[in-house]
Amino acid sequence: VKPEDRFVEKLRALLPRADGVLLGPGDDAALIAWPEEILAATTDLLVEGVDFLPDEDPGRVGRRAVAVNLSDLAAMGAAPAFFLLAIGFPAERGEEFPLAIVRGAIERGSEFGTHLVGGDLSAAKQAIVSVAAWGRPAPSSLTRSGARPGDVVFVSGHPGDAAAGLRLAQTIAAFSREDNAADLRFPELSAEHQQRLLAAFQDPVPRVVLGRALAVEGLATAAIDVSDGLGVDAGRLARSSGARLLLEEDRLPLSRPLISFSEMEELDPVELAVSGGDDYELLFTASPACAERLEDRPDAFGISITRIGRVVPGGGAALVSRKGEREIADLGHDHLERLR
Amino acid sequence: VKPEDRFVEKLRALLPRADGVLLGPGDDAALIAWPEEILAATTDLLVEGVDFLPDEDPGRVGRRAVAVNLSDLAAMGAAPAFFLLAIGFPAERGEEFPLAIVRGAIERGSEFGTHLVGGDLSAAKQAIVSVAAWGRPAPSSLTRSGARPGDVVFVSGHPGDAAAGLRLAQTIAAFSREDNAADLRFPELSAEHQQRLLAAFQDPVPRVVLGRALAVEGLATAAIDVSDGLGVDAGRLARSSGARLLLEEDRLPLSRPLISFSEMEELDPVELAVSGGDDYELLFTASPACAERLEDRPDAFGISITRIGRVVPGGGAALVSRKGEREIADLGHDHLERLR
Repeated sequence: VKPEDRFVEKLRALLPRADGVLLGPGDDAALIAWPEEILAATTDLLVEGVDFLPDEDPGRVGRRAVAVNLSDLAAMGAAPAFFLLAIGFPAERGEEFPLAIVRGAIERGSEFGTHLVGGDLSAAKQAIVSVAAWGRPAPSSLTRSGARPGDVVFVSGHPGDAAAGLRLAQTIAAFSREDNAADLRFPELSAEHQQRLLAAFQDPVPRVVLGRALAVEGLATAAIDVSDGLGVDAGRLARSSGARLLLEEDRLPLSRPLISFSEMEELDPVELAVSGGDDYELLFTASPACAERLEDRPDAFGISITRIGRVVPGGGAALVSRKGEREIADLGHDHLERLR
Repeated sequence: VKPEDRFVEKLRALLPRADGVLLGPGDDAALIAWPEEILAATTDLLVEGVDFLPDEDPGRVGRRAVAVNLSDLAAMGAAPAFFLLAIGFPAERGEEFPLAIVRGAIERGSEFGTHLVGGDLSAAKQAIVSVAAWGRPAPSSLTRSGARPGDVVFVSGHPGDAAAGLRLAQTIAAFSREDNAADLRFPELSAEHQQRLLAAFQDPVPRVVLGRALAVEGLATAAIDVSDGLGVDAGRLARSSGARLLLEEDRLPLSRPLISFSEMEELDPVELAVSGGDDYELLFTASPACAERLEDRPDAFGISITRIGRVVPGGGAALVSRKGEREIADLGHDHLERLR
């Protein structure tokens, strides 16, 4: 169990029961009765040097801060509605810095029909961006806890691309600090592949359309967004559902750019996919009947979806290969551990 | 115009119109149609060394983070309902640190009927606590913009106490860093007065009962919470309302502890009251008829209220004394300027 999950368990033990709280801490978002229409609410905090690289473009930081919150709403099958934005930043960066963050946040939000309604500013030693976002869940919400043995496991997009993009961004940043950016070449990696990996980390796309369709059409039994790594997030879904997830290594949707990058850097692409984090893809489970319906319309959700495993009795999450089952619920990072 | 207000003006210019947003950035909270019952939503960020002293008790930081958000809801006449909490902290402080913040936040929230429903944690260089809170406004919400010439100006409690409490806390912290805390004596200040000033800064009471009564009973025309100083916040209410606020120096409700502290430190208590900030009292305006009704029940709101001035045509805010009118809308601090 990761430190952050242990923390949430302690926090839940402190909470009194409250009227109107349909689902409290421990899922991707809270669900509140207000009073006729339910609202889903979530908050995510991005810290410079922890969640994004120092000197990252502030507009992209704003886009990302909104995207990671919308990703939580997507995992609940909620339609984003509005958000609040609090920014801390070193005063010497000037007023244009938070304004650029706000512009990026408004832009990313409007692409998904969600609106900035308020905010706060403060001086701080490092840039921090805190977003709280609200949305409207489907009549039957998605949670992490509905997976049952026999269900099929899917993931959207290409886990691992963001982890490769982070490493690429770090390399580029190191070269540009040393002022020899012009010497930086990745002949093994096409410009297009570089760009795809960088975008996966710097400007993730929240899977709002997919999450919404899964919930509205009742196609999934459980979902979580992959923020900290396929391994740890599969373990979280498994724990919430009281079941075990088996992911098949051969079925992992490793992208061409990820494979090229891994060859160049002599890394294992499977490791990046399982423990990399920052993907903001959806990991979800579906009954066998719904799994067939999902596989019949692979292009319906704006992003590819891939059947990668199944739910069995037990606990935890494992990666299955010819070598056997390897436990992966403790792979990946958590926001208390990682410091770059 | 303070940098933070200029920022909000620029931000408002960036925002497209949005359905369901009844009131966007620029007041104490936003108002959203959801869809039958309106919700008021606000966020406030506290940064260590900016909004609270380094090494402040984490439980008190949690209480304060919730209180300053509830203060914004109070200024809208909204009943607090739920909040989200994001915490950044240096990992070396250990897990007990954020848990103590959470405990304080839950405790302060439950005193006002509001519940923690979710949160986020991240590593950070300094402690930061970001709260987003939402509540139910009265059928006719209070805003900053309803003051009209002829209205009477009131303030709750004792502005300036928090500014004195901050200075006292800084002195105590400096002594305890030098390890001669035992030598620290304030013979001019009784223990009770010390305690009152410290509590005003460290553990402010959001004026939820008062704000709610003003809105539900339709007793006030406009309100703002005094977070940055009576001067600057009077100026904000005046600007939103398109009017001028005249505050009478002789009517300012200077507390006995504030006067004793000011004598001891050779400070002007009026300056602390007008430009100190951190009071989280409500500054509000009422029609002459409602002003009489308010003054007939001074003990009805859990906190004293004092008539301190009036609204006249024009703009800005001034303190009126025998020496004439002195502009005060630029006094006080704002969260981009202050660094302790």
